[in-house]
Amino acid sequence: MTHHVSTMLDTYPKDLGPVSRDTLAACIEACFECAQTCTACADACLAEDMVADLTGCISINLDCADLCAATGRVLTRRTGDNPGVTRALIEACLAACRACAEECERHAQMHEHCRVCAEACRRCEQACADLLAALA
Amino acid sequence: MTHHVSTMLDTYPKDLGPVSRDTLAACIEACFECAQTCTACADACLAEDMVADLTGCISINLDCADLCAATGRVLTRRTGDNPGVTRALIEACLAACRACAEECERHAQMHEHCRVCAEACRRCEQACADLLAALA
Amino acid sequence: MTHHVSTMLDTYPKDLGPVSRDTLAACIEACFECAQTCTACADACLAEDMVADLTGCISINLDCADLCAATGRVLTRRTGDNPGVTRALIEACLAACRACAEECERHAQMHEHCRVCAEACRRCEQACADLLAALA
Amino acid sequence: MTHHVSTMLDTYPKDLGPVSRDTLAACIEACFECAQTCTACADACLAEDMVADLTGCISINLDCADLCAATGRVLTRRTGDNPGVTRALIEACLAACRACAEECERHAQMHEHCRVCAEACRRCEQACADLLAALA
Repeated sequence: MTHHVSTMLDTYPKDLGPVSRDTLAACIEACFECAQTCTACADACLAEDMVADLTGCISINLDCADLCAATGRVLTRRTGDNPGVTRALIEACLAACRACAEECERHAQMHEHCRVCAEACRRCEQACADLLAALA
Repeated sequence: MTHHVSTMLDTYPKDLGPVSRDTLAACIEACFECAQTCTACADACLAEDMVADLTGCISINLDCADLCAATGRVLTRRTGDNPGVTRALIEACLAACRACAEECERHAQMHEHCRVCAEACRRCEQACADLLAALA
Repeated sequence: MTHHVSTMLDTYPKDLGPVSRDTLAACIEACFECAQTCTACADACLAEDMVADLTGCISINLDCADLCAATGRVLTRRTGDNPGVTRALIEACLAACRACAEECERHAQMHEHCRVCAEACRRCEQACADLLAALA
Repeated sequence: MTHHVSTMLDTYPKDLGPVSRDTLAACIEACFECAQTCTACADACLAEDMVADLTGCISINLDCADLCAATGRVLTRRTGDNPGVTRALIEACLAACRACAEECERHAQMHEHCRVCAEACRRCEQACADLLAALA
């Protein structure tokens, strides 16, 4: 999907400003991917026989999915200029990705979906950190 | 809708923790109301003859709608415990509501939808501030 | 919230077309309320000791919440004219509300959150049916 | 992203049923990609000098983004079984993708973002049609 995200950024009719296009595209892509993966991990946890032990994981999965979806949309929009809002949202998204990764890593050896989800969360956490640094 | 939000909080089968139920319900309600109002304001701006002067307003309206919708969902979920994520998200939502209110207030005299939207944003900003104080 | 939905419809700068404003406002309001209630019911089910018996309920709760949220947003937008899309979406939303109500009604006597959620789903199902009839 | 969607489907702990995993993964991926692309196209239209001529395009872009996002989430969830809801939602998503593609194709020669967006909508329309046929 990075390809499509970058392609759309290239078609933006006005100046995109000083932010690195690659860093921005990588973060948008990571947010959409993480939203999908966390939605899938919540559902896979729900299908496990031991679901009663996974309710905390399901809950942070759902929160992380909602936050990544909102962040992916807000970052996609380049019109208007609210750097304070963008920065606060990326920080919240980074915190959700970290919390979800830590939770999933606890059962990564038992549940393959948690292992894959933890990786997607760590990638998105890093992409958020990179974008925050680029915006500084 | 506050009534329904409170009713559902009352049915939660486990302890809701130390947070004031009324403060929480008020913030959830304000988030859903603000998400709807900002979506409507973006659409009303789009229908104005002078839409070219309102693109910044439309953009922050859409961002604020996405942030309020995500915050309303995350606050609705009481299972799991990620106070750091919740706090960062409320702060981002508060920042978006403030930015959207400031933008809408600039054309509140000319556009009734911006006047009503600014009020919804200010209510949600305050509800976020109240909840942050209650969580401290 | 109906009050705020109606107020925003009143500020729309162009003609809203032949649809009854009250029927439309009632459906938008029901969609947002149902999205919140289903999100809360999924979370309350997750907090039940017998969560393993409620995974089907959680899943349809989450689907219904997503569909109601999308329908509430699309119905809020009055600019542009895609009656076929709107009609198909309301039909899908109505089907989700009915399925979620039927599932929740099965454990309404045991779980108060399912009883309240079933009522919200039935209200939204009816509001969707009313709007479909008004659009015919 | 198809790779990640497929990887998560492979980790689902229960039977995925008779649906073709590739057809399902392709539709989920197309929905997320189309949601991102339509969000970007709405924003790029907003940044055009001739935005007043593009308000219908922005509106269907926003509707299509909401519908694709909801459809991508619902299709990602495999727990529970509501084939009627899923089918109605895919049909609504297909209708939105077709309407958005038709609108964007009208100014594809003038606006590169509309050309790219129309392609994403056509891909998602086809992926929905393929999945509907596979579910029959």
